[in-house]
Amino acid sequence: MAEIKLSKIQTVAPKNIDKEATKTKTIALIEEIKELQNVLMASAKKSLLVIIQGMDASGKDGACRNVFSGINPAGISVHAFKKPSDEEFAHDFLWRVHHVVPEKGQIKIFNRSHYEDVLIQRVHKWIDEATVKHRFDAINNFEKLLEQNGTKILKFYMHISPEGQLANLEERKVNPKKMWKHKDQDWKERELWKEYMTAYEDVFNNCSKVEWNIIPTDQNWYKEYLIAQKVRDTLKAMKLEYPKLVTAEPKPVATKK
Amino acid sequence: MAEIKLSKIQTVAPKNIDKEATKTKTIALIEEIKELQNVLMASAKKSLLVIIQGMDASGKDGACRNVFSGINPAGISVHAFKKPSDEEFAHDFLWRVHHVVPEKGQIKIFNRSHYEDVLIQRVHKWIDEATVKHRFDAINNFEKLLEQNGTKILKFYMHISPEGQLANLEERKVNPKKMWKHKDQDWKERELWKEYMTAYEDVFNNCSKVEWNIIPTDQNWYKEYLIAQKVRDTLKAMKLEYPKLVTAEPKPVATKK
Repeated sequence: MAEIKLSKIQTVAPKNIDKEATKTKTIALIEEIKELQNVLMASAKKSLLVIIQGMDASGKDGACRNVFSGINPAGISVHAFKKPSDEEFAHDFLWRVHHVVPEKGQIKIFNRSHYEDVLIQRVHKWIDEATVKHRFDAINNFEKLLEQNGTKILKFYMHISPEGQLANLEERKVNPKKMWKHKDQDWKERELWKEYMTAYEDVFNNCSKVEWNIIPTDQNWYKEYLIAQKVRDTLKAMKLEYPKLVTAEPKPVATKK
Repeated sequence: MAEIKLSKIQTVAPKNIDKEATKTKTIALIEEIKELQNVLMASAKKSLLVIIQGMDASGKDGACRNVFSGINPAGISVHAFKKPSDEEFAHDFLWRVHHVVPEKGQIKIFNRSHYEDVLIQRVHKWIDEATVKHRFDAINNFEKLLEQNGTKILKFYMHISPEGQLANLEERKVNPKKMWKHKDQDWKERELWKEYMTAYEDVFNNCSKVEWNIIPTDQNWYKEYLIAQKVRDTLKAMKLEYPKLVTAEPKPVATKK
């Protein structure tokens, strides 16, 4: 894979793409995903792990809500990674992550992930560069282990512009339904934009044995379309099938009430 | 609460209820639930635990899928209780249950629950009657603990007729999308119908400090309507509100890129 420079990648949809037509396509894709998820759960041989990374207010929650609502909740769950607890810090950085990977038949969404351990921790210099290299290795090996066990991994980076983030952060101050998401800290992290971009590029260039999907995120409708398309394509490529009937008694006798 | 006799309770919708009009109402209820769930998650002060019990093929999975699909998966998860593991059996029967109750802000669905420990285990006489009484007490105390901590509990019993179950079990043998659910064991359990009804009635009459909702289940559209209505009413009664803006810096300065 060619080296990724985020500044050279658009954060907006191409000009010739029609918004309404795209939204219609997304709805159809989500219907397909619902059906494919049923087979994934029924066959219970493989699983799907969707990793969503991105800056604060880059639209991770919205991607999760708008692409994955509608799926049978028995077959999907979301894990939002927060600051590690004392117990988690007392283990290696993958310990808490390993615990919540999807079991066979399930879709799991990671809202943030083990990549925070080579992003926020690196940007703030809480870890040294040797540790960063070790963690890149560990992540590649961890993802390989999961894939070898039947877990398909999809990694999405919410590629937002600084202006797009500013608009989203400002909205949290005025929209009563979004005020609960406002954190002063997000404004402080924003000052480290350049350092975060460099750290992300290093992630893309060192941890891409499992492909990264860089998603232009300034318009939600385009972001949701790209994610839905990738998820649909991935589930379809698994060539899942409903299991056949298993019974030792082809014709059970009528039973008493 | 008056003593419950399941044989005196209808498993079908009242004759004067219009199917199409009811389906339309259910769709509107689910839209309301989606909005209420957003506030539940944003406010993060209370949680909702939905317990779904019922005989094999009584429509527990369908209730879960059709009422709760559409909700933001970041705010809801389903726990399907199976046969306990060796580690779980080595603890008290509520140990594994306690571990998966909802945290504040979340909706959790239990597909089967701690009630199996006074149903299947009792019907098969794997436990004695003294243990059953102890467990009723323990369940009442456990549910009280949860409610005192802000977890509202909704208990639904999928009230199906033996004929309705037979039709559902037969469908699993011929519908390719449902064959994965077929288990010979379900036909064996069906022979214990009467014993199960007695055990359920005993549950309703001993563990009703938190109300049981007996849901006529022979028609899915009516079942889904009743459940959606109860969930909507319950979330609405919580009088949830979006949190106000919390910030130490009312007007953050413009930040560098």
